[in-house]
Amino acid sequence: MNLTEQMNRLGRQARDASAVLAGLTTATKNAALATMAAILIERQAELLSANAADLTDAREAGLSSAMLDRLTLNPARIATMAAGLRELAALPDPIGEIVKGWRRPNGLLIEQVRVPLGVIGFIYESRPNVTADAAGLCLKSGNALILRGGKEALRSNLAIAEVLTRAGESAGLPAHAMQMVDTADREAARLLMRMNACVDVLIPRGGPSLIGAVVEHATIPILFHGAGICHTFIDESADAEMAERIVLNAKAQRPSVCNAMETLLVHTAAAPRLLPQLANALTVHGVALRGCERSRALVPTMLAATEADWDAEYLDLILAVRVVDSVDDAIAHIHRHGTKLAESIVTNDLARSRQFLQQVDAAAVYVNASTRFTDGGEFGFGGELGISTGKLHARGPLGLEALTTTKYWIHGEGQVRE
Amino acid sequence: MNLTEQMNRLGRQARDASAVLAGLTTATKNAALATMAAILIERQAELLSANAADLTDAREAGLSSAMLDRLTLNPARIATMAAGLRELAALPDPIGEIVKGWRRPNGLLIEQVRVPLGVIGFIYESRPNVTADAAGLCLKSGNALILRGGKEALRSNLAIAEVLTRAGESAGLPAHAMQMVDTADREAARLLMRMNACVDVLIPRGGPSLIGAVVEHATIPILFHGAGICHTFIDESADAEMAERIVLNAKAQRPSVCNAMETLLVHTAAAPRLLPQLANALTVHGVALRGCERSRALVPTMLAATEADWDAEYLDLILAVRVVDSVDDAIAHIHRHGTKLAESIVTNDLARSRQFLQQVDAAAVYVNASTRFTDGGEFGFGGELGISTGKLHARGPLGLEALTTTKYWIHGEGQVRE
Repeated sequence: MNLTEQMNRLGRQARDASAVLAGLTTATKNAALATMAAILIERQAELLSANAADLTDAREAGLSSAMLDRLTLNPARIATMAAGLRELAALPDPIGEIVKGWRRPNGLLIEQVRVPLGVIGFIYESRPNVTADAAGLCLKSGNALILRGGKEALRSNLAIAEVLTRAGESAGLPAHAMQMVDTADREAARLLMRMNACVDVLIPRGGPSLIGAVVEHATIPILFHGAGICHTFIDESADAEMAERIVLNAKAQRPSVCNAMETLLVHTAAAPRLLPQLANALTVHGVALRGCERSRALVPTMLAATEADWDAEYLDLILAVRVVDSVDDAIAHIHRHGTKLAESIVTNDLARSRQFLQQVDAAAVYVNASTRFTDGGEFGFGGELGISTGKLHARGPLGLEALTTTKYWIHGEGQVRE
Repeated sequence: MNLTEQMNRLGRQARDASAVLAGLTTATKNAALATMAAILIERQAELLSANAADLTDAREAGLSSAMLDRLTLNPARIATMAAGLRELAALPDPIGEIVKGWRRPNGLLIEQVRVPLGVIGFIYESRPNVTADAAGLCLKSGNALILRGGKEALRSNLAIAEVLTRAGESAGLPAHAMQMVDTADREAARLLMRMNACVDVLIPRGGPSLIGAVVEHATIPILFHGAGICHTFIDESADAEMAERIVLNAKAQRPSVCNAMETLLVHTAAAPRLLPQLANALTVHGVALRGCERSRALVPTMLAATEADWDAEYLDLILAVRVVDSVDDAIAHIHRHGTKLAESIVTNDLARSRQFLQQVDAAAVYVNASTRFTDGGEFGFGGELGISTGKLHARGPLGLEALTTTKYWIHGEGQVRE
């Protein structure tokens, strides 16, 4: 069987499994999640041994220590994966919800009911713990799943998928509820992107080159997690202590993630009062600053920012700093350089907070809080399959509801159209 | 300026207009809709003269009479376009709705608020009245619009767009709220499909070759209206009079549209009682029948159906007829041959009606009503930009809400992430 045939078989099997998954009771799905959580712990030796083999190869291939860390499984991380599945079991089932219902003048009763999407294709890079998160979210939302992970994590992912599939089957799930593409061949990913007959949505999760390839080649609808160039704007009226706390958290608490701040904007009337103190606190936390001329006039130790800095997603302890003349200028800067993920204003001015909320076009717009909260768990969604920076279907953290669609039930008594 | 530059300019202008449109009050938008409705009537002579020129060319090009009819504007059709705009003015504004809101344990208040998508690209075939519908729906939902119509209707469309744009400007809309691509060059459509930086969603509306080209070439997210192979299943317990009324309506009231029935499925236990009567009524209404062997045993005048008939979207007075053994077999047939648009069961059996609603995977699933109701107007949406047969973002009639997205507002008092 060649690769095309193999992929088509995965697709057909997923399509068939999806019809069964759509009809499962909440009790069956929750019991399966509990069984899957238990078996991850019970059979962790198998997972750790597969992961050790991946790690050996990755070290030989010279992967960076950050990449090796992302690839590593250990008992604590496996326990977190299991806990994630148990949390999903405790969440309400989105499927079957009557979203809306109304009666038409002709007596037809129309109900909009929430149903699974069907088959989800998930293409992701090296963190193997994501495999369990994706399996749990897709099961709870009644979807079949085809996974295509990074080649560095192939053995870890296959081991996790095999363990979870066996647990699922013992709990009454169809055999092909989740399937892992078992080859590192890139052609498999390209085929997956064009399986419109079998796959309802593709969710790529990874770096810009992965996302770019999927946007270019996919004919299936996609939900994707683009870059995160997030701003924090310190308004004239900002409280100094609050501004420092939020800025440090947004930049330094975990600089490598998409919802970390990349550019700090400071109102010109607040800059003399706040910027030296903020710069000092950031420097103490190891952050390298790159400022505009007005910033450097107040904090001469900063390096000079170039135009490229306003469009940089550093994902590191580096911060661009710019003094702006007004909330309008802050919004204009964000409009030009932001990526519509998360933006925050620190202010005590009601009118400016309203203006910022209304005019900033981003999935999450904050007043007096850190952009780092842009996360399915922090939103109360019980995990996420990424954060959508697109506007269609789901915007922001992709939780359970983002993995559903609706259909209309129309109840008549013989009505026909005039 | 070459075509690429022209299209990019349209895109930038639309993007700038969208920021203004997103902030308009409901009162401004409704007043603009009323002005636009009035001016269509007032300046109908211009529209009719442009349309007459299109019709002359179309006759010379040998377009079918059905196509010529679709292309034709007359005072009654212009009055209907104007009435559509006034109806939109009377509908609630979807923008600004707080869809959900909740407080997190850390005190953060999260609100999900409905906002415009931004810029909508609309590619459609020859009916010029759709130009006004699209302009109205996009304005009411706060979106900028780039239109690309069929080449046969180019002068009609440009005249409508010009009149509506001038009316809009006089009522306070930005000049580039709606823009018509003013060339019939196919390259313009191909460029529009890949303007990811400026266009948020593309809505193609037309035949299978248009849809296929957009699915293949677009890198922008699309909402599309695929084929409509709709079924009506007459269950064992169906009322004879109701079955006849629904079947005639679904097939013969307007056979050329996507929500008309293409295949009739009849339960084997009901077929001897109902099929001869249904076949007679359909024949009287000019419908040509193509039946399976069991159908032909009961109605020998039917032509024999081939496998291809189960996958045919006739859009004509032709109907495929099949006798099935059970509701399971009816659902299996629909699963295999349907296009997920609209499906109906005629039954008096509660359990079977529930099974049909739950197991049939389609945008609209009916019990005891005609599939012809699958329409934005009939659903109470005040018009539509098509009917989505995809599952992402919006499924079924694309009304105002389908032209919106949401963003999250997060209100804090200095919260940072642990």
